[in-house]
Amino acid sequence: MSGPVLVTGAAGRIGTVLRGGLPERGWALRCLDVVPVGDVRPGEEHLVADVTDLDAMVDAARGASAIVHLAGISGESTWPAISHANIEGTYCALEAARRASVPRVVLASSNHATGYTPRPGDGLLREEDAPPRPDTYYGVSKVAMEALGSLYVDRYGLDVVCLRIGSAFTEPTTTRQLATWLSPADTVSLVDAALTAPAPGFSVVWGVSDNTRRWWDLSAAEALGYRSADDAEPYAEALIEAHGEPDPDHPVHARVGGEYTTAAFDAENFSA
Amino acid sequence: MSGPVLVTGAAGRIGTVLRGGLPERGWALRCLDVVPVGDVRPGEEHLVADVTDLDAMVDAARGASAIVHLAGISGESTWPAISHANIEGTYCALEAARRASVPRVVLASSNHATGYTPRPGDGLLREEDAPPRPDTYYGVSKVAMEALGSLYVDRYGLDVVCLRIGSAFTEPTTTRQLATWLSPADTVSLVDAALTAPAPGFSVVWGVSDNTRRWWDLSAAEALGYRSADDAEPYAEALIEAHGEPDPDHPVHARVGGEYTTAAFDAENFSA
Amino acid sequence: MSGPVLVTGAAGRIGTVLRGGLPERGWALRCLDVVPVGDVRPGEEHLVADVTDLDAMVDAARGASAIVHLAGISGESTWPAISHANIEGTYCALEAARRASVPRVVLASSNHATGYTPRPGDGLLREEDAPPRPDTYYGVSKVAMEALGSLYVDRYGLDVVCLRIGSAFTEPTTTRQLATWLSPADTVSLVDAALTAPAPGFSVVWGVSDNTRRWWDLSAAEALGYRSADDAEPYAEALIEAHGEPDPDHPVHARVGGEYTTAAFDAENFSA
Amino acid sequence: MSGPVLVTGAAGRIGTVLRGGLPERGWALRCLDVVPVGDVRPGEEHLVADVTDLDAMVDAARGASAIVHLAGISGESTWPAISHANIEGTYCALEAARRASVPRVVLASSNHATGYTPRPGDGLLREEDAPPRPDTYYGVSKVAMEALGSLYVDRYGLDVVCLRIGSAFTEPTTTRQLATWLSPADTVSLVDAALTAPAPGFSVVWGVSDNTRRWWDLSAAEALGYRSADDAEPYAEALIEAHGEPDPDHPVHARVGGEYTTAAFDAENFSA
Amino acid sequence: MSGPVLVTGAAGRIGTVLRGGLPERGWALRCLDVVPVGDVRPGEEHLVADVTDLDAMVDAARGASAIVHLAGISGESTWPAISHANIEGTYCALEAARRASVPRVVLASSNHATGYTPRPGDGLLREEDAPPRPDTYYGVSKVAMEALGSLYVDRYGLDVVCLRIGSAFTEPTTTRQLATWLSPADTVSLVDAALTAPAPGFSVVWGVSDNTRRWWDLSAAEALGYRSADDAEPYAEALIEAHGEPDPDHPVHARVGGEYTTAAFDAENFSA
Amino acid sequence: MSGPVLVTGAAGRIGTVLRGGLPERGWALRCLDVVPVGDVRPGEEHLVADVTDLDAMVDAARGASAIVHLAGISGESTWPAISHANIEGTYCALEAARRASVPRVVLASSNHATGYTPRPGDGLLREEDAPPRPDTYYGVSKVAMEALGSLYVDRYGLDVVCLRIGSAFTEPTTTRQLATWLSPADTVSLVDAALTAPAPGFSVVWGVSDNTRRWWDLSAAEALGYRSADDAEPYAEALIEAHGEPDPDHPVHARVGGEYTTAAFDAENFSA
Repeated sequence: MSGPVLVTGAAGRIGTVLRGGLPERGWALRCLDVVPVGDVRPGEEHLVADVTDLDAMVDAARGASAIVHLAGISGESTWPAISHANIEGTYCALEAARRASVPRVVLASSNHATGYTPRPGDGLLREEDAPPRPDTYYGVSKVAMEALGSLYVDRYGLDVVCLRIGSAFTEPTTTRQLATWLSPADTVSLVDAALTAPAPGFSVVWGVSDNTRRWWDLSAAEALGYRSADDAEPYAEALIEAHGEPDPDHPVHARVGGEYTTAAFDAENFSA
Repeated sequence: MSGPVLVTGAAGRIGTVLRGGLPERGWALRCLDVVPVGDVRPGEEHLVADVTDLDAMVDAARGASAIVHLAGISGESTWPAISHANIEGTYCALEAARRASVPRVVLASSNHATGYTPRPGDGLLREEDAPPRPDTYYGVSKVAMEALGSLYVDRYGLDVVCLRIGSAFTEPTTTRQLATWLSPADTVSLVDAALTAPAPGFSVVWGVSDNTRRWWDLSAAEALGYRSADDAEPYAEALIEAHGEPDPDHPVHARVGGEYTTAAFDAENFSA
Repeated sequence: MSGPVLVTGAAGRIGTVLRGGLPERGWALRCLDVVPVGDVRPGEEHLVADVTDLDAMVDAARGASAIVHLAGISGESTWPAISHANIEGTYCALEAARRASVPRVVLASSNHATGYTPRPGDGLLREEDAPPRPDTYYGVSKVAMEALGSLYVDRYGLDVVCLRIGSAFTEPTTTRQLATWLSPADTVSLVDAALTAPAPGFSVVWGVSDNTRRWWDLSAAEALGYRSADDAEPYAEALIEAHGEPDPDHPVHARVGGEYTTAAFDAENFSA
Repeated sequence: MSGPVLVTGAAGRIGTVLRGGLPERGWALRCLDVVPVGDVRPGEEHLVADVTDLDAMVDAARGASAIVHLAGISGESTWPAISHANIEGTYCALEAARRASVPRVVLASSNHATGYTPRPGDGLLREEDAPPRPDTYYGVSKVAMEALGSLYVDRYGLDVVCLRIGSAFTEPTTTRQLATWLSPADTVSLVDAALTAPAPGFSVVWGVSDNTRRWWDLSAAEALGYRSADDAEPYAEALIEAHGEPDPDHPVHARVGGEYTTAAFDAENFSA
Repeated sequence: MSGPVLVTGAAGRIGTVLRGGLPERGWALRCLDVVPVGDVRPGEEHLVADVTDLDAMVDAARGASAIVHLAGISGESTWPAISHANIEGTYCALEAARRASVPRVVLASSNHATGYTPRPGDGLLREEDAPPRPDTYYGVSKVAMEALGSLYVDRYGLDVVCLRIGSAFTEPTTTRQLATWLSPADTVSLVDAALTAPAPGFSVVWGVSDNTRRWWDLSAAEALGYRSADDAEPYAEALIEAHGEPDPDHPVHARVGGEYTTAAFDAENFSA
Repeated sequence: MSGPVLVTGAAGRIGTVLRGGLPERGWALRCLDVVPVGDVRPGEEHLVADVTDLDAMVDAARGASAIVHLAGISGESTWPAISHANIEGTYCALEAARRASVPRVVLASSNHATGYTPRPGDGLLREEDAPPRPDTYYGVSKVAMEALGSLYVDRYGLDVVCLRIGSAFTEPTTTRQLATWLSPADTVSLVDAALTAPAPGFSVVWGVSDNTRRWWDLSAAEALGYRSADDAEPYAEALIEAHGEPDPDHPVHARVGGEYTTAAFDAENFSA
């Protein structure tokens, strides 16, 4: 378990954040993406490969102590594209872990796995109160991801932590993200927790910062060791001034998946 | 909504039961399978087609009032086989319904979607207490099936009823099936309820007979209109004599998925 | 030649019959199917695999003394489905035998390879008087199966026995099956003969019981060692009472392939 | 039935011969190949398309009075290549005919469909005495071709003539070809006969010239209207001087398929 | 020609820049990507589709006045990934333009099409002095892109402008980019020129800002109407302080493709 | 470097010429084609394989001293066919060379890579004055071939010589070929030069005989060691008598790609 952490999708937005923050927490990284990462840093290993190529993934996984699987299409798309990249890709990541005896896999799930889940009348939404209710094919692929993860825990004894990530951006840019933002520092912290928690078995946790306006419960993530250091609130005044006061009854604010659950989403993207 | 019910996998075991029982409840059937059904009955329409062929499925769905989707691999298999037949097949069934404006789809899910869920200490297990915990790739495909069904309800307004079928055989042949048996008559009754329940939206229900030894709750199925007429208990004495008294702590009896969750299952089928 | 017999399609109807009967004739079985067989018996080996996966088939064939290839689509279907499952599947079975040095393969051919062949005016129909005259894509796949078998005998020195099976059911259920029935016991006997006949080279034989009403010659099968123990005649009275006296001039009775050669077959299954 | 004849594989050796000879017998040609034919002649139509593209084939077949299907791999190859080009290609040619209501198809079969058939002790070999006995995957594809042709006659009412072509070259170049040569003029004559014979139904005929040394019977071809005008014998003296007196017991001369049935064929082409 | 401009890859880095700048130059945009763009702006049309789906691309192209094709993998990858996304994708973009009668296509080529071309001893490098010399599979795909573009101009009469883009980032971050930077404003200006130049036929131009340190000639781009408004020089001092004085003989500075041509590039990304 | 030369497409027209001429220049040949070559000669090795099967190609390349890659579609075709056979095939040939450490590859490129290039007003056309300007998908595949070759030289250190072959036939048959003919003897001479030139790196040369009417420069080919021994002029009188005096302004004579660049080419082959 002393090998590097294999990070798939390392050239992406979250991968870039992890490459910046995980090394200082002591993790050696083996970065895999379908394109070169670009600015190789000391101590990093690199691999260009396609996550849906099982043989390549098994090769990439050899000697790793864990896999952080970020690769895939990071939003709604056509079913064939989603099915291939996200469902087959997750199968390959987990099966590669099994074949290469990598004991732990962290999966980048998403709030969209349960996007149609409404905001609770009061209190925080716990993961166990948000069963699968996908808002998109993308969300379906995340349900399948979590199901595959669960299987590899129960059947093959891996540890699998699924992070239902909110909005992982440099900073929040919409009023919704005042609730759902996961700051770069917290992204690192959350993945670090997922990698270090003792014997997590199968675990699904929200991935958001400790935002003043959040309505997703952080107890499960904190049980893994996650400690959020950020809050989107300092951005609130400017965002509200720019975009208006959020309407709590609008689906964007009243459902886990936000705009992905709105009629406008389909009208704007899929009806032409 | 006056068209026939399109039944996929009509030549299979459950399809054959439905062909025997649904017509007398007033349903006209359009039977689809990858092989001819064999003994065409008066009033039946027939089609030989592959459920993973979307164009063929849309053609088959035109004019139907509902789809009962049974086709697929009905047990564990390799991932590529399961992924193709069961996940792509379900997508095609639902997408065909959407494109052909068929308002309702009944999906043959399975207890294996949540096979590792343990038997409750006491009382009956409700569907909402059995979130995804698949025991096999087959089970993963059923989680994906339910997720796709949920999406088509929330996003496209279909009605989708998922039946987590127990053991749909002519009669129970193992002591486990004393709990999980779904009799042929009850199979017809359950599908009939799924087809007639007013506005079910998205619904997931267990599919078992009212067995004396069952530990799956029937409230949700009954809320759809299901009334079980059978009980496996008359078979109990003979089965226990033949196979021995069931050990309630053995995974076969202590988990939803039964033998699919045992080490012997892997050892016997996948280790050669 | 002391290894087990690899049976593909072992979970199917004929596979189940063979698993019941071959062991008591001294054969150890390695059962392969795309789904688990379900009730593993002592002495059996098991494998879940897809017969169109050549690498998996070569692995499965290693150490086997023979292959009994039953897997595939067991009736008419679309051309892509038939072509893939039955033609590619047979290629894989034979090529696996060659690569793994398995000396003998028994192929489940079908009367539908020559389904349009008419019943002879008098006497019994010999195999050599029934050249390829397929009634369906399924029948074409069986012609290709026999041709592949012939090639592997002539070019690579294997022994290949093709069984043109009639109606292999528990009991006859139509008046046609009074002629074409192959009883479970005779199924076992026929496969046993195909496995034990000394140096059969390439052989094609009908697979029917010694039915009073049969019109397919059994000399070739008997030359392999087959001895039929059953006759469908005891079912005749009841079947005729139920279905009427068979019309010997109707294609169902006047052609090898029976109902597959009728206009009704296309009208019922392929014209919707 | 007044439309042109669609010739697939029109840029090949036999296609070129037919383009030279069929027009003067009154046939208008629509030439299809995967490459341009090159020297378009007055009255010819041309199409670049792949015969395994069913949609393109149906388009190409519209309005044609017949199809002469020559396209495919014209000798032994790997199974995947043969299976795709020759079996799928033949399916597409026949299915295109059916969908476009083209009433007749002439198929370029081959002696290799029955290559291991031995030369008769005396007399001429009739087609009905040469059932499938392929010498190669190529030969298997020709058995499948003939079986598909038979099916489309019996099931769909097309006329299909299969030409088991011997050695269609400008002139014979081996002593074996003294028996098997089909001269260019006779190639035209044979295809013309296959196109004009009244109601041939399903017919399989040898395609050789009236060679002094031939041992394949021409009665069936002549029954279609074929009249051979050529004989390879004038080439005999020179070929025997160059290559030696043919040994009638050597497989090259003693089997229908000639060198394709020899051990040297495998050793030279497939063992590296 | 009054329809919108179809922008493929609209959710990407360059697509985002164009969405910001093209509208104010009077262009209506139809944005296509495999994921939703996210923040739909007034006047924009949107489509989620895969550029390698020809039918979807033809649908997307209908009514467009031009296509700006940005979609694809934007750096080195495996050959199968590059071949599919970039070569097939470009074919689909151009073929869609032809079928939908869209008269102009702007292609996002790259300096990597000629990455091994050395920096000239003195003076500026003109496009015609930089024939194909790709540094990667990515570069090969850009050569194929330009070749396809050239074909569609010569054979089908389209106008096709290929932009060999340098480093299109918000600001330069390496000393190499002091020469190769294409600023956001200049990106808009360049694409605008490519869309408005009268009858460009086939044109290949560098895409860089008017950087003090550039060594790529801008005459051809300027002939299209491009006027650069930016220069990377203000970033020079800070970048040199951070990274050191650039060594003009190092491949990063001495070859068009920069680091993609270095041994380190392969060692770091492809040798694990 | 003492191993045989692997010749792909060895059964084709140019392959046959090389098999006739290279051995007497001292080259041992390993002949690969998708069909058997037919008349195996002493000293030749043979392999039946598909050039797009990378594993088979690597096996075929082991121990070879060079690869002469002729396989592929030798003229215009549909994009999918060209893309697969010619672009993927070339990738496999080069990648096989790299993996098997074969130091040199000779690629059969074509004048159609630059088919729309006009004949120069006077003087001879040099390769460097004929950058990519393909006339067909076929031509695009040759541009991609040359680009891949260039990459394997610059990135992996192979030697790659691309021969832009004119008209390699037994004798010229059109007036255009009076300029573009490459005689059989010169074909051998040119390939021999490409195999023996010391350290050619990446080289692209025309492949024509020293025809009186040629307008392609031979300096580059001669620099490799090529010495043409033939001239098409003896055929001029007869060809001109048959086809008329060539019109130098007609595209057939005024462009590198000849008839492939004419409107008639599309009309005749692609518009039906």
